[in-house]
Amino acid sequence: MRVFDELLLNFLRGHVKGGKLRIVLPSGTTDEVGDQACPLVSVQLADRAALLALLRDPDLAFGELFMDARLKILEGSIYDLLAIAAQSVRNVKPATWIMTLRRLRDAAWRLFPGNPKAKAKANVHHHYDLDFRLYRTFLDQDFQYSCAYFENENQTLDEAQLAKKRHIAAKLLLRSGQHVLDIGCGWGGLALYLARTCGVKVTGVTLSEEQHKVARARVAKEGLSDEVDIRLMDYRDVTGSFDRVVSVGMFEHVGKGDYAPFFDRIRNALPEDGVALLHTIGCGDEPGPTNPWVTKYIFPGGYIPALSDMTPVIEKSDLITTDIETLRLHYAYTLKNWRQRFLAKRDEMAKLYDDRFCRMWEFFLAASEAAFRFDRTLVFQVQMAKHEDTVPITRDYIARREEELRKIEKALPPLAPVEPPG
Amino acid sequence: MRVFDELLLNFLRGHVKGGKLRIVLPSGTTDEVGDQACPLVSVQLADRAALLALLRDPDLAFGELFMDARLKILEGSIYDLLAIAAQSVRNVKPATWIMTLRRLRDAAWRLFPGNPKAKAKANVHHHYDLDFRLYRTFLDQDFQYSCAYFENENQTLDEAQLAKKRHIAAKLLLRSGQHVLDIGCGWGGLALYLARTCGVKVTGVTLSEEQHKVARARVAKEGLSDEVDIRLMDYRDVTGSFDRVVSVGMFEHVGKGDYAPFFDRIRNALPEDGVALLHTIGCGDEPGPTNPWVTKYIFPGGYIPALSDMTPVIEKSDLITTDIETLRLHYAYTLKNWRQRFLAKRDEMAKLYDDRFCRMWEFFLAASEAAFRFDRTLVFQVQMAKHEDTVPITRDYIARREEELRKIEKALPPLAPVEPPG
Repeated sequence: MRVFDELLLNFLRGHVKGGKLRIVLPSGTTDEVGDQACPLVSVQLADRAALLALLRDPDLAFGELFMDARLKILEGSIYDLLAIAAQSVRNVKPATWIMTLRRLRDAAWRLFPGNPKAKAKANVHHHYDLDFRLYRTFLDQDFQYSCAYFENENQTLDEAQLAKKRHIAAKLLLRSGQHVLDIGCGWGGLALYLARTCGVKVTGVTLSEEQHKVARARVAKEGLSDEVDIRLMDYRDVTGSFDRVVSVGMFEHVGKGDYAPFFDRIRNALPEDGVALLHTIGCGDEPGPTNPWVTKYIFPGGYIPALSDMTPVIEKSDLITTDIETLRLHYAYTLKNWRQRFLAKRDEMAKLYDDRFCRMWEFFLAASEAAFRFDRTLVFQVQMAKHEDTVPITRDYIARREEELRKIEKALPPLAPVEPPG
Repeated sequence: MRVFDELLLNFLRGHVKGGKLRIVLPSGTTDEVGDQACPLVSVQLADRAALLALLRDPDLAFGELFMDARLKILEGSIYDLLAIAAQSVRNVKPATWIMTLRRLRDAAWRLFPGNPKAKAKANVHHHYDLDFRLYRTFLDQDFQYSCAYFENENQTLDEAQLAKKRHIAAKLLLRSGQHVLDIGCGWGGLALYLARTCGVKVTGVTLSEEQHKVARARVAKEGLSDEVDIRLMDYRDVTGSFDRVVSVGMFEHVGKGDYAPFFDRIRNALPEDGVALLHTIGCGDEPGPTNPWVTKYIFPGGYIPALSDMTPVIEKSDLITTDIETLRLHYAYTLKNWRQRFLAKRDEMAKLYDDRFCRMWEFFLAASEAAFRFDRTLVFQVQMAKHEDTVPITRDYIARREEELRKIEKALPPLAPVEPPG
């Protein structure tokens, strides 16, 4: 029954690149493949069922086996292994049986592409209502749970998250007194930033009860309850009009079937001189279903859009795409920071949850980092307007406005630390 | 038979905005519609057949009637009329019979979307082999026949065309000694700029015999024959590899059916750290067939791509879209300059061609300007690379490189004027 050993080893011999991999199979067979000049990553598969699961559905099994400690890292880290995997499988034409499985999954995903409100609420609860202490462990001080903007590679996570808010504020072309809708406002960091630096009013909406409580408390503490209104509601229930609409790291949860109403809502909320900015994880390859492990354990209902998913819908919504910035390695840097911070407090987290949860979380952060570094996972900042003359003719205004905002930030008192929900 | 008068007048009464329009119909009926506060544009339709043609197929007839002087402008200019038209018909749901005609046209265009080599050559000859004296009349000194980049609204056309070349050079991340492929090199201006300022080798290809002659002579005169190679050939026949690929104002002629081979060729021509920049007119609305008057008289085989036409093909070609800049009013400013220059030499041009040609050319420049100003016609600069780490993490390098290039330009001797083909 060494046929399965041979199947896996043959695949690895033919494809592994970007690292040196030693694999210890349940039968005791050991092999070393890849680039001998690279540092060794050594992996053990605990049992024959693990080997079969990996052959049958690698996308799902890889993460599950690691969570269950049936795929063990003997040398190196799970990130090192995932980085090799990401570099090795690019441009690999999967075997027919894998393609068939994927097509089936794809068909199911086309049948149920959207997220009705109750499902959206449950999806959000699954992830964002995890323990406050977990997020405090790895996020920056302002609880920015989306890709930071590293003006240079040496910035700290806190500096890069501040730069992200500044970059977005600049692209929103805000004038004092304007009213901004923040769809998916998280723990309120961006809303507070915009109100404090640009003198705008912000209505932030979230479906997470924990985020809602924390964000409201932060707003009250900063004395900005007249300026910033955080609401626990589905963005589809928001009425009224807004000068600007911003959405950061929320579009990933919208689901392909709801793209048209999403952009129509943005359009309808904006006046003739309105501007919107969408910041979302994106897929640089042809669109396809999101990784099944991620949708099962991390983001149920999630879907990573390709530009080819968004552009036809934006065109139909009658908004002009005025700029698309592709942030590439920024999320890899962000996730590396998050993983290092998380692992530094791993023991604490294992007491709060358990070892399996910690392995799940480490796998999530490591797999995401590898995807952003090597496997065409990107972040798109899509700026939209209704008319040709709304946004300045050149993009220089972004850097100029960032410079002004840096000065404004320096004159502000520090934000109070984010406190757990009462 | 006043029913057709009423049909047209009813439509105008219901839709005209952005101007005040007086229309004098063949029956003698005169009406004034639109915004009374605006300057008057007065139009006369010469005969009943003209009225019927306009009702039957306005997209085609508008330009043809103006060319034939059967639609006459009594007050204002054809641009003023086209500007009103562009603002009035946005978001107008066309009547069923118009939609049916459009769908038929659409179907035909889906059947024959590409441009085989012989057709591409004939298409190019139709437009770009027009008399040298015509282009000299309205283009800048460097013969840049594509959208300029106005760093501010007060720049002259020559300054803005220089800024365009600089902007593109910056986005190409050139290093001295690299080899650039310029697909659709026109009269050689960009190739010369890149060779002179960045120390690169350039292979430029064009299908226009006139452009080829002129560009080669320019290269020889500048003593750059070792650095710049201008070839009379279809881009599909280019072999070899290049560090960079640039294409400015040529993709509009590729045709939707040939997008996949176009991007595949770019990918295959580039090394792993390659960069490509595509500068093309784009459509900000849902994709549709190009205006029938334009394809009949100006650009046979032309097709204006929407982002939703390009993005799926780029994703399939395995290139990463690293940046998309939407240039909006820049082409409106460029076209205004071209039209003013052309009209200043109209008498000369009428001797070279005839009055009908001059009206055709004025209509082309005026209609294009109105489309860029009011009707969602845009220019996209799409930057592409093969890997996540090829292009710097932030876009600041563009402004920094432009600053360096400005200094380099100042130290260069002036270019010799463009001479007519021997």
